[in-house]
Amino acid sequence: MQIAIVLFDQFTALDAVGPYEVLSRTPGAETFFVAEHTGPVRNDNASLALTADRTLAEVPRPDVVVVPGGPGQTPQMANPVLLDWLRAADTGSTWTTSVCTGALLLAKAGLLDGRRATSHWLALDALTGLGAKATGERVVFDGKYVTAAGVSSGIDMGLALLGRLTDDRTAQRVQLLMEYDPQPPYDAGSPDKAPADLVTEFRAHTRHSK
Amino acid sequence: MQIAIVLFDQFTALDAVGPYEVLSRTPGAETFFVAEHTGPVRNDNASLALTADRTLAEVPRPDVVVVPGGPGQTPQMANPVLLDWLRAADTGSTWTTSVCTGALLLAKAGLLDGRRATSHWLALDALTGLGAKATGERVVFDGKYVTAAGVSSGIDMGLALLGRLTDDRTAQRVQLLMEYDPQPPYDAGSPDKAPADLVTEFRAHTRHSK
Repeated sequence: MQIAIVLFDQFTALDAVGPYEVLSRTPGAETFFVAEHTGPVRNDNASLALTADRTLAEVPRPDVVVVPGGPGQTPQMANPVLLDWLRAADTGSTWTTSVCTGALLLAKAGLLDGRRATSHWLALDALTGLGAKATGERVVFDGKYVTAAGVSSGIDMGLALLGRLTDDRTAQRVQLLMEYDPQPPYDAGSPDKAPADLVTEFRAHTRHSK
Repeated sequence: MQIAIVLFDQFTALDAVGPYEVLSRTPGAETFFVAEHTGPVRNDNASLALTADRTLAEVPRPDVVVVPGGPGQTPQMANPVLLDWLRAADTGSTWTTSVCTGALLLAKAGLLDGRRATSHWLALDALTGLGAKATGERVVFDGKYVTAAGVSSGIDMGLALLGRLTDDRTAQRVQLLMEYDPQPPYDAGSPDKAPADLVTEFRAHTRHSK
């Protein structure tokens, strides 16, 4: 089994590394970070670089595709190399997945038309605009398409997907090894729970930056 | 403010990237991945490489030190370059922190003597053996020393520390941006919650590999 995690300039690191940490522990799987070119790829903050070990062209038929998001998603919406690869890889994949605004790339490639899907809470309207049925859920399965909400949700998606790829016991083993027993010190992780003025501030900034 | 996240061969990726994703959003902070040498550093699975942009020597006085764990922690226990750097950096740091078995490196450097601290649940006995007062808590503050349990706990530590570095509102803003509202699909993330036979299996394996 091949698992391909896509990188592009200005991706968000945890979008990629959260599911990586889970899925790379799939027994018998090979996991590759893939990008248009091999070598270091800088994240949204530019203070982190992950190495792409394979080009997109070198991994044409992955079993699992994972597309992260981040500010770099916007320019990628007009990158035919990535969009063509996503469409071609999807024809052979068992699971095509995204985290955060990576869902917008899947939708732009035409893979989420009419499907239930999720994305970062600030990107749900954009996801609807691209033809998906956007939900506010944290992880959404619709056929072989699996989408996760913002950034940290890729860990939850990874575990749910690992359970499907293998079995519940294997996923529980990885959860225990990763000691994934979250105890956030604040309860502000969704727009329903965070202070209302913070939510308003983010929404205003998002409208302004469009 | 300088935040230095230490890398070494066979580190565990999420140990480093979890706190990175939070702490790199500290207003006014510069975050560096540091290692003995600059360049790509491979993780425990060898399928991921993060770039160290600075050598340890180039960042002698960070305000915040973050030490991840992973299988590579064992050989680092005998690396005087890293241990000497930890001791020297600690003399000027505001916060000295670790995730997972990174606590064993802090302890080996003599920084946790008699202090309350935590580590991966399978490493708590080893932590006690190195002179710390090991607890099973997820995040432990003792003075300026902050230690987190296994792998994913670095996200919780990052948010708690960001609250101290800045204020609650800033930490909540980052939590909302990261959509950190965990919904694990299984409840097996700690030895108290996981199926007992999985816990037994890990403990037997750990004893065998010593």
